[in-house]
Amino acid sequence: MNTIQSDNYAVYFDNALDELVNFIKKGKYTKFFILTDENTGEHCLPLLTNKLDGLAYDLIEVQSGEENKNIDFCVGVWKMLIDFGADRKSLMINLGGGVITDMGGFAASTYKRGIDFVQVPTTLLSQVDASVGGKTGIDIDGIKNIIGTFTMPKAVFIAHEFLQSLPPRQILSGLAEMLKHGLIVDAAYWTKLKSSDLKNPSVDLVHRSVEIKNEIVLEDPHEKGIRKALNFGHTIGHAVETYSLLHDEDSLSHGEAIAIGMICESYIAHKKAGLTLAELHEIVAVLSNLYPKYTINEDSFDELLLNMQKDKKNVGNEINCTLLTHIGRYSIDNVCTASELCDSLRYYINL
Amino acid sequence: MNTIQSDNYAVYFDNALDELVNFIKKGKYTKFFILTDENTGEHCLPLLTNKLDGLAYDLIEVQSGEENKNIDFCVGVWKMLIDFGADRKSLMINLGGGVITDMGGFAASTYKRGIDFVQVPTTLLSQVDASVGGKTGIDIDGIKNIIGTFTMPKAVFIAHEFLQSLPPRQILSGLAEMLKHGLIVDAAYWTKLKSSDLKNPSVDLVHRSVEIKNEIVLEDPHEKGIRKALNFGHTIGHAVETYSLLHDEDSLSHGEAIAIGMICESYIAHKKAGLTLAELHEIVAVLSNLYPKYTINEDSFDELLLNMQKDKKNVGNEINCTLLTHIGRYSIDNVCTASELCDSLRYYINL
Repeated sequence: MNTIQSDNYAVYFDNALDELVNFIKKGKYTKFFILTDENTGEHCLPLLTNKLDGLAYDLIEVQSGEENKNIDFCVGVWKMLIDFGADRKSLMINLGGGVITDMGGFAASTYKRGIDFVQVPTTLLSQVDASVGGKTGIDIDGIKNIIGTFTMPKAVFIAHEFLQSLPPRQILSGLAEMLKHGLIVDAAYWTKLKSSDLKNPSVDLVHRSVEIKNEIVLEDPHEKGIRKALNFGHTIGHAVETYSLLHDEDSLSHGEAIAIGMICESYIAHKKAGLTLAELHEIVAVLSNLYPKYTINEDSFDELLLNMQKDKKNVGNEINCTLLTHIGRYSIDNVCTASELCDSLRYYINL
Repeated sequence: MNTIQSDNYAVYFDNALDELVNFIKKGKYTKFFILTDENTGEHCLPLLTNKLDGLAYDLIEVQSGEENKNIDFCVGVWKMLIDFGADRKSLMINLGGGVITDMGGFAASTYKRGIDFVQVPTTLLSQVDASVGGKTGIDIDGIKNIIGTFTMPKAVFIAHEFLQSLPPRQILSGLAEMLKHGLIVDAAYWTKLKSSDLKNPSVDLVHRSVEIKNEIVLEDPHEKGIRKALNFGHTIGHAVETYSLLHDEDSLSHGEAIAIGMICESYIAHKKAGLTLAELHEIVAVLSNLYPKYTINEDSFDELLLNMQKDKKNVGNEINCTLLTHIGRYSIDNVCTASELCDSLRYYINL
């Protein structure tokens, strides 16, 4: 797999963990820190520390889970950096899923007004989604990534071996973003995905997803225009995810929520953006086959709409969606009415 | 007074509040917010709202005082922005002293990954120090600005009329930074300051200080080199300020602490960087005449040194000072030993 060049940094695939160790050794950092969570600390950290060859580091471990991507945990990370004596020439290594890479990126980009950090995504979702683009963030009151910065990591290391220890549900979570990449800009990739073993996505498929996302974010680093393509499925998906996080004991994964969002927004796209009925059915068939049905009640619509309004993508009171005009083509900034959004939720409910 | 051009933004002096109202009207923002504190809300806000001519805004008011420049208040600001429905095209107006401009800048630069903000500094200190350079920040555990970003405001408005309502102690606080500007790069300005009415610094003097600071930060926006000139007096000064904030009921102002730092660091400069004895005496005479003596005890030295070590300017365990080689000239990155630092504190104690 060739290395992908992003905005002043490289995304490594081959021998990614060896490349990381090289990076640390070459970097002349005063200290380095590994931020991880309990799960990753158990399953992934040993693969890295085995290669560190006696290099000294400090470990910052937080609890696992999206509900911990909040300001309290972030303050905890800052305080540990202070206690460990992190200075401006220290390096932070974010080893984990999106919670760790988002929050660790935010903590590093604001500690002493910014120290170097690298991302070592360990879940499929964070490998294909959070690894490029420079978005960092934390949640407040369950509103995802409401606080954050655009700050590029110094490098990203994608080690396929981490995926071996992932439970099937986490694979599915990342898969939703990969399917999205095909649906918005690459019909051939979508077709390839449909015929692949999606329980164990190959490194080639992961690489292609990172490539697609990278091409988009390089063209539009601050989400002024075409980067909004990546929001397909996310206006409704994020709202459902926030809802589930607040109300369900066993809440939806990001990908499970985005899959629902992609079905609903494809329905809207069929109604008003040109997506054909055959394409809609194809999308619904693939997603329904992969993802379990989630029970949504009409009583929840008001809360879901409120969540959509609070979405940081929106300006004023309008709710915007990125819609497919066909499989592999998209259109941004489509204002959707409450009635259109509710109709699409009803379509999902009645599937 | 001519407008000063900084890094993609302007610093207005003449009719500053009218310029601000023009800026708001021209900006096509969806909403705008005024962040202020109790004091500024009482003394300064009316001067602005008088000119707003019915423009609707939301007010975010926080308690006054450096001890409130912390993450809890910042979270409060973020939550109010969420509640008021601030979107990516909203504008935040930070009306107040350094606490408001630093914290408001940080809150705005991280809310939804960054919204526009302008600075309207109302104290002498914030006008000459915090208004240019793009530093934003909050304190953690009393460590000043340990968390922050480098983000430029869209404009800065310096209204001299705000200084009329300032108590003398706050004028003195800003004056220390003005004296510093002369001491590091402009001996003529230092001489002019010495012979001026320093209880009511003229707008010309304020303008020259902003000009000096602006020239320095434009050359070195991310504090890699010459910007460190501005740290003169701050290695020791910040440590004393942090100490006082934790231990004194009526704690030192920033400028009072920096004046102590400038005396101590001038002593070190005389010992090892070329500052003549006559220059040292001149500096000490001017500062001692303006600022009250502060009681420092030898028992506090350990804590002061620890504060210096935690300073974000330092790399590794070394403590760095910016030293004067002469009045109007400086040298950066001078490693100072604990013994040199303690000697300088003793010199201050024995004055």
